[in-house]
Amino acid sequence: MDKKVKVGVIGATGYAGIELVRILSDHPKAELVGVSSVSFNGKNISRIYPGLRAGFNQTLVEGIEAMPSECDVIFGSLPHGLSEEIGAACMKKGVAFIDLGADFRLEDEEEYIKWYGNKFKDTLLHKQAVYGLCELFREEIRKSRLVANPGCYPTSVALGLYPALKDHLVHREGIIIDSKSGVTGSGRGLTLSTHYPECNEAMSAYKAGAHRHRPEIEQTLSKICGSKVNVTFTPHLIPANRGILSTIYCDKKAEYSQIRRCYERAYENEPFVVLLEEGEYANIKNVRLTNCCHISLHQDEHTQKLIICCAIDNMVKGAAGQAVQNMNIIFGFNETLGLSIIAPAF
Amino acid sequence: MDKKVKVGVIGATGYAGIELVRILSDHPKAELVGVSSVSFNGKNISRIYPGLRAGFNQTLVEGIEAMPSECDVIFGSLPHGLSEEIGAACMKKGVAFIDLGADFRLEDEEEYIKWYGNKFKDTLLHKQAVYGLCELFREEIRKSRLVANPGCYPTSVALGLYPALKDHLVHREGIIIDSKSGVTGSGRGLTLSTHYPECNEAMSAYKAGAHRHRPEIEQTLSKICGSKVNVTFTPHLIPANRGILSTIYCDKKAEYSQIRRCYERAYENEPFVVLLEEGEYANIKNVRLTNCCHISLHQDEHTQKLIICCAIDNMVKGAAGQAVQNMNIIFGFNETLGLSIIAPAF
Amino acid sequence: MDKKVKVGVIGATGYAGIELVRILSDHPKAELVGVSSVSFNGKNISRIYPGLRAGFNQTLVEGIEAMPSECDVIFGSLPHGLSEEIGAACMKKGVAFIDLGADFRLEDEEEYIKWYGNKFKDTLLHKQAVYGLCELFREEIRKSRLVANPGCYPTSVALGLYPALKDHLVHREGIIIDSKSGVTGSGRGLTLSTHYPECNEAMSAYKAGAHRHRPEIEQTLSKICGSKVNVTFTPHLIPANRGILSTIYCDKKAEYSQIRRCYERAYENEPFVVLLEEGEYANIKNVRLTNCCHISLHQDEHTQKLIICCAIDNMVKGAAGQAVQNMNIIFGFNETLGLSIIAPAF
Amino acid sequence: MDKKVKVGVIGATGYAGIELVRILSDHPKAELVGVSSVSFNGKNISRIYPGLRAGFNQTLVEGIEAMPSECDVIFGSLPHGLSEEIGAACMKKGVAFIDLGADFRLEDEEEYIKWYGNKFKDTLLHKQAVYGLCELFREEIRKSRLVANPGCYPTSVALGLYPALKDHLVHREGIIIDSKSGVTGSGRGLTLSTHYPECNEAMSAYKAGAHRHRPEIEQTLSKICGSKVNVTFTPHLIPANRGILSTIYCDKKAEYSQIRRCYERAYENEPFVVLLEEGEYANIKNVRLTNCCHISLHQDEHTQKLIICCAIDNMVKGAAGQAVQNMNIIFGFNETLGLSIIAPAF
Repeated sequence: MDKKVKVGVIGATGYAGIELVRILSDHPKAELVGVSSVSFNGKNISRIYPGLRAGFNQTLVEGIEAMPSECDVIFGSLPHGLSEEIGAACMKKGVAFIDLGADFRLEDEEEYIKWYGNKFKDTLLHKQAVYGLCELFREEIRKSRLVANPGCYPTSVALGLYPALKDHLVHREGIIIDSKSGVTGSGRGLTLSTHYPECNEAMSAYKAGAHRHRPEIEQTLSKICGSKVNVTFTPHLIPANRGILSTIYCDKKAEYSQIRRCYERAYENEPFVVLLEEGEYANIKNVRLTNCCHISLHQDEHTQKLIICCAIDNMVKGAAGQAVQNMNIIFGFNETLGLSIIAPAF
Repeated sequence: MDKKVKVGVIGATGYAGIELVRILSDHPKAELVGVSSVSFNGKNISRIYPGLRAGFNQTLVEGIEAMPSECDVIFGSLPHGLSEEIGAACMKKGVAFIDLGADFRLEDEEEYIKWYGNKFKDTLLHKQAVYGLCELFREEIRKSRLVANPGCYPTSVALGLYPALKDHLVHREGIIIDSKSGVTGSGRGLTLSTHYPECNEAMSAYKAGAHRHRPEIEQTLSKICGSKVNVTFTPHLIPANRGILSTIYCDKKAEYSQIRRCYERAYENEPFVVLLEEGEYANIKNVRLTNCCHISLHQDEHTQKLIICCAIDNMVKGAAGQAVQNMNIIFGFNETLGLSIIAPAF
Repeated sequence: MDKKVKVGVIGATGYAGIELVRILSDHPKAELVGVSSVSFNGKNISRIYPGLRAGFNQTLVEGIEAMPSECDVIFGSLPHGLSEEIGAACMKKGVAFIDLGADFRLEDEEEYIKWYGNKFKDTLLHKQAVYGLCELFREEIRKSRLVANPGCYPTSVALGLYPALKDHLVHREGIIIDSKSGVTGSGRGLTLSTHYPECNEAMSAYKAGAHRHRPEIEQTLSKICGSKVNVTFTPHLIPANRGILSTIYCDKKAEYSQIRRCYERAYENEPFVVLLEEGEYANIKNVRLTNCCHISLHQDEHTQKLIICCAIDNMVKGAAGQAVQNMNIIFGFNETLGLSIIAPAF
Repeated sequence: MDKKVKVGVIGATGYAGIELVRILSDHPKAELVGVSSVSFNGKNISRIYPGLRAGFNQTLVEGIEAMPSECDVIFGSLPHGLSEEIGAACMKKGVAFIDLGADFRLEDEEEYIKWYGNKFKDTLLHKQAVYGLCELFREEIRKSRLVANPGCYPTSVALGLYPALKDHLVHREGIIIDSKSGVTGSGRGLTLSTHYPECNEAMSAYKAGAHRHRPEIEQTLSKICGSKVNVTFTPHLIPANRGILSTIYCDKKAEYSQIRRCYERAYENEPFVVLLEEGEYANIKNVRLTNCCHISLHQDEHTQKLIICCAIDNMVKGAAGQAVQNMNIIFGFNETLGLSIIAPAF
């Protein structure tokens, strides 16, 4: 086998980080040469996650400085505010940087300040960043070295709405997004709401109309549309480990059959996007552990609404899987490399 | 203690039926004198549900004929199409009948034919029936002997929208209802989609825009409003035993603060409806096993939408609990009798 | 209704504490006059647990000093080491004290030091304490004012083995106890192993042979037997909120049929202990939320082992429910008062 | 890449069958050329399991006759009693046959009759069959064409006890096995006990001392020991999709440290067996979706018992994964081929 890409993961023991480790350790063209963690510096990663014991043993180091200099690409999986400096360091060294955090996702500094509380430290750096929603922006990604990997909710929404919005087959006003996420979306940090007895047999909305992913959703939809899109977005927490289901409501501007054909065409060559057949419903279990996105379309003949159900695995297509897909694009690999797993039936 | 109401339950071994048994067996003014089941005729009910072993042992009989003649009230918990004859028999004998099935819910025969496939067998009987959503129609219920106990989704939606629609503080057009239900809503019958390995760690919508509860929802909302209301309604199945959360989206016609005050006033004397405080979210766990309905209001300042979250226990306020509340109303008891349980914290 | 017993709960916002509040708030002869919590002093308890909103609103105070002086009985639900002083204060004031913690469970100070690290502060006080396993020691409890409420695992094991050991129908050597507990057994404190994504779809043993409940189990079994009993005890954590199932293995000294008859006689008048019929299996779901204990007996004809399955709700019979049963005994009430709930079927 | 082994799966839509499809579809040296199903003959398998949609589409045929003649190996995943004829047909055609059913597991016909109700149809055929517990019998498997893939419980027990029994470091009498299994072990067939609301938040033992896997366990342990081993075996159902945890209790004949060294040596070169470090506990989550077996050893210093915890994924090492490992052995591949997946952290 020819030369592999050398990869480092910063923040490898968080949930998105460990999912990156799982995927990359089985990637035929990637070699994971460095894993870092502030919390577990110096420990073997398989002590933190015993599921790695049989296949992957590597000592955790701390920070970008400790990453092997041979790295061709660095993945960052960190809380927001920590990736800008790492991105700058990578750019300087000519190393590609794929950021699973939020630092480079919003292009508008005002919005970033409003939702994340910080200014851009280096405006030029932000201009170099490409929003890594692979199916929509793969040409830009191909030429880039700095990728802002999309958020989990925004990925499910953008893929769900893209064909209809692009061809103006639905109204861009009044779009309502009701999303449901598994608990891993909240990360590995301990909170009362993710304590098992509080979270099991429970369900509620949270941050209705006020989640940080809303400006990110609107930024992408506006680009697709060519004009400003405002949405109503309500996330919910459901008692499952993985998966996001976004149920999207919008008003049709075209016949339902025309909309279906538009989706068929838009995604017919996309390896990871599956348009389900009439009467089927997107279900998080059918995309579990995969980089796939399942979309089902439904019309409410009564009210002329189009209902779009879009299911992804929040930790794969919504995080680590799409990050690896971005790496594949950047390095000219087949996009499905290392991501060919079939969803287990249970 | 003074004389108790004698009660019979037909269909006692289905999920709503057994929930009736649980509640009635601890009701201070009711005596459960007969339980029937086609499937388990002749068996002791505590053989089917061993959880009853320590507290309740009674032999199952079959059908209305086998019910003790002393019954003052009969609850029917049967698949649709089977309650009309039982209702007629009860009316003839002067026994109150509370139907947990769908037979008497829709007033419009055309709609009933469309959604359930059958004609009304006895139009006059249907005219006697009252729709048993207690908080909205308690005066009619008080005078009635034939109550159509509401469906689970319709209960959550009507309570969630009632104050705002009644006072015309939101637009009646464009209402979107995204509901999530625990698995008991599908009943005790075995199906692949409720087989544990298929249902656990899974979630999807079903019957989008085409669920039988939609005409029932619209009938109630139209009554509240005084004019026809059409809604978009999408139910989802979530991996939990109990609970319905309806997330309702509508357009404000008034200030948010005015809407909140309207809800406060509407429900301030309702023992089972709790308007949560600003910033809290309705959660199915906080109403589990109770007859309560938790409502939280949220405004999306960005899009001027009002987001209403309404949580009930689908098997209690959404079925057996509300049926007992209806009995309490009919017999002039305090509405909370037998329904005072506090939600267990876990 | 005649005068009620005035009750206070110290540590009311922990899991056992809030379960006490739930049960006591519906007890016909008890009035909950004080609830305390170090963490939430000054707050209304229904802010911490919104499930109480409709039925129970009371302000949390801090500590025994702040408890109303009218209290007839105090329940303590605190980490070990904190109950001795409270118990002493109660004894001084002539108030009954029922301790859900471990401070008064072990009679042997050496064992207490070994497993809990502290000496007895007041040896006389410990001598006054009675071990509150109601079915075994109700006569002592009736005369006592200081009750050590048993641990959850020890309750399931003692009830499962009592008849056989008492009549010497099984060997007291070589008893093996494999227990499985729901997650509430770990309490409300946040830990990685009770973080939902770590705990869901997971299962393991913990503290094999080294759990603090082992000396407590052995103390009770030795009393039953009249000679020292040593056991092998392995607890496991399973992905469910509530429930303990103990599977107990021992060697028969008598015919299986004789053993069954012994269990029938031992428990025929016990309102909370159900001996399941031949072929049935004790299941945690059938005792959920109740003070019941389900026992099923199984013989391995192949190896002459007796297998005893014993299911309780760890938070009710294993904690708050048994504590209330102890209160009922002390105050001369019917033991089932406030504990008559039937297990919900789901 | 060189020529691949052509593979057929009979019974491909059952749970073990679909797991075979998942693993084989990503195996670098296998080509899945035929999938059969009596229930879904003629349908595309990705209609039954939409998770296959993006990666695997193949039409289901019916039975061995319809399998492509080019097959080098057939996997059978059928209820017991159906594999003998298929095995005979395969042997005749010179096709290897790996049976995931129970038909060829028991060598003693009397035992087979006792537990499965049928005689052996072809005694010679049974003599050709090798019991496919790879770590124990790989030399025999290598030379065989007819493999009886072990049951899930027996795999976990044999791997857990093998080193200690082989070296006679524990007593072969009095071994107690308390096993806990996820719900997929019951298969895809609908039953009340696997209906979500009955199974969720529930747990119980079943078939205590009378499960068909007991004679299979004893057959293997007796072989290891060189003399007849009788065990007490109690399986339990727990609310999780996948995983078996067997907690095994036995009496030490040697020092604990010697036993640990024995396990270290026995498994140091086994790619799929991990001996956890002192203080760690085998957990089903750490082997999920993998062919690994995690073993943790614990001593009860108090009673001189050795406690062995052994975790596998019941559908992988306990079924489809071990079957593929057997195929790898038969065809001379590296045993880990197609089985290198790392356990997802959640």
